[in-house]
Amino acid sequence: MSLLEHTVVKIQPQDQQARSEALTRLQQLTMPSWALGRLMDLAMDMAGITGSMKPPAEQKVIVIMAGDHGVVAEGVSKYPQEVTCQMVRNFINGGAGINAIARTTRSKVVVVDLGVAGDLSDLVESGLVLSKRIAPGTRNIAQGPAMNREEAIRSIEAGIQVAFDLADSTDVFGTGEMGIGNTTPSSAITASFTRHSAAEVTGRGTGLDDTSFRHKISVIERSLQINQSHQGDPVDLLAKLGGFEIGGIAGLILGAASLRKPVVIDGFISTAGALIANGINPLAGDYMIAAHRSVEPGHLAALEYLGKIPLLDLDLRLGEGTGAALAMTLVEASCRILTEVSTFEEASVSGADK
Amino acid sequence: MSLLEHTVVKIQPQDQQARSEALTRLQQLTMPSWALGRLMDLAMDMAGITGSMKPPAEQKVIVIMAGDHGVVAEGVSKYPQEVTCQMVRNFINGGAGINAIARTTRSKVVVVDLGVAGDLSDLVESGLVLSKRIAPGTRNIAQGPAMNREEAIRSIEAGIQVAFDLADSTDVFGTGEMGIGNTTPSSAITASFTRHSAAEVTGRGTGLDDTSFRHKISVIERSLQINQSHQGDPVDLLAKLGGFEIGGIAGLILGAASLRKPVVIDGFISTAGALIANGINPLAGDYMIAAHRSVEPGHLAALEYLGKIPLLDLDLRLGEGTGAALAMTLVEASCRILTEVSTFEEASVSGADK
Repeated sequence: MSLLEHTVVKIQPQDQQARSEALTRLQQLTMPSWALGRLMDLAMDMAGITGSMKPPAEQKVIVIMAGDHGVVAEGVSKYPQEVTCQMVRNFINGGAGINAIARTTRSKVVVVDLGVAGDLSDLVESGLVLSKRIAPGTRNIAQGPAMNREEAIRSIEAGIQVAFDLADSTDVFGTGEMGIGNTTPSSAITASFTRHSAAEVTGRGTGLDDTSFRHKISVIERSLQINQSHQGDPVDLLAKLGGFEIGGIAGLILGAASLRKPVVIDGFISTAGALIANGINPLAGDYMIAAHRSVEPGHLAALEYLGKIPLLDLDLRLGEGTGAALAMTLVEASCRILTEVSTFEEASVSGADK
Repeated sequence: MSLLEHTVVKIQPQDQQARSEALTRLQQLTMPSWALGRLMDLAMDMAGITGSMKPPAEQKVIVIMAGDHGVVAEGVSKYPQEVTCQMVRNFINGGAGINAIARTTRSKVVVVDLGVAGDLSDLVESGLVLSKRIAPGTRNIAQGPAMNREEAIRSIEAGIQVAFDLADSTDVFGTGEMGIGNTTPSSAITASFTRHSAAEVTGRGTGLDDTSFRHKISVIERSLQINQSHQGDPVDLLAKLGGFEIGGIAGLILGAASLRKPVVIDGFISTAGALIANGINPLAGDYMIAAHRSVEPGHLAALEYLGKIPLLDLDLRLGEGTGAALAMTLVEASCRILTEVSTFEEASVSGADK
């Protein structure tokens, strides 16, 4: 079996016994019934995911998958392609939005090159960036497939391998990404899965004006038309519509799920990766925590398809893993509620009147 | 001048120059325009509140004001009054919801006795609880005023004094409270300010059934009827409808505002305190950050009256300062975004195409 096949068959549903034990304890905590609302739902998920009444959330890691996109030749982004590599350097220097937020929630940031168009070899050699390079960017999806099937599998397996390599030092994974132009493949992937039209799941990305926005929708429509993918073959869909980093995210999720570790899904592009992972094995959804609702309209459609309600809604549209890094606080809080709050009996607090 | 008068006249609006400088820097950060949404709005507020381009958010303190309520004699809560003191002991032992969440966001918890019905003298003597006791609980607002005017002023001044005493070790204040029955005065205060009916701003508190819920609304209607307060006299309104801890929260907010320090407002009861503070000096609103939207229906009405949009919406209804403690992460993240993220120029990242 390949690494992908081997990983996919290992994924089990959440542990119902642990969920049930968590429910019992949460109902006895010194507070009115379910008074911490969604944090308590999350605590049950964390117990079910890890199979433990003491789910750990100390070691939080945001994995930023970076890749470039041939479709930028169509003029779908406000920023030039070189920004992908420049931002990777910014991540390593600690000067990006994700660094500021990850420091706040004591999350570690790991950057993986899945296929950027520039040269990051100095950062790879010094161990600052993990290299899982497939090619210097995907091909233009408005003219043909983003990559071939073998490359699609390699991108997913790269993400799986990253999850395995980081497993010992990670309690909670978070997804992040960097890739100029990557809302375009994300909209295409979202449209394919959710059966929405391109216009319904396309947003302004980094800030397109009206003319460029209409153009972006037409590029996505064309990409969908010339890249008809096999029904029920998410690997084919990834190959056709692409994103090496989107494949990497899908792999990270599958790897985390096979390890019974939670993975916090960031924004729109990460959720496109989650759609691929869910398509490969729907049980992977049991391990996903939706961090936030992004400004991108396709994000909500993708979250609804996955049956996930995001934790935060703060008008974020940066990506990089920023929403996932913020949500780490809620994940950690939920675990502490389960493990550190006393029951009425333990604290000698009177219960509700009958 | 009294401490209250002295404090109220010191409150200035947010520093518009600092807001404007923050805006300029935030627009140059290495990300698409305003891509961190509400965190960037919050960063501007933090600059305006502190008058600094480097607003500190290292030292976060949740102040839990505790008090009891005579109106519990009407059967408005599911829990017996003794739970107020039992929960204070739980806070000190670190076993409550607020402790778990405050540990997550590295916030300190300070507990103040404004007037509980039980004996906390052992905790006061050992320095674990601050005593600002006014009386062993308010009087029953369904039969007359909660307290006299002098007691109302004392409760507010107690909160101001706490803000002053903690000022040197606090960058960001958060409000919290404990007091069995305190959603009842909070609904009454909210109804008075917002001109909503009692039914519109009353919820099930700790979890009343339908019959008890209808009874609670009728108790609030009666309290409002027999406690007509002077228009435009928020101190009178506090005296009539009460809550020593609600007065303490109002004072904490006024004190923080006079010190140009931000104060994160927790849930429904805290927001009732914010209504009192805002009534005394509307400029205090410039220093308030609304942490979350609680399940209590009156909370949204109070937030709308104050013109505040809450940061989080997680179906919380515990109080104690739990929402404020969670939101501390967003406050800290916003400050780090302003001070730690590089500009395009600093990081040598290419800007958007013209």
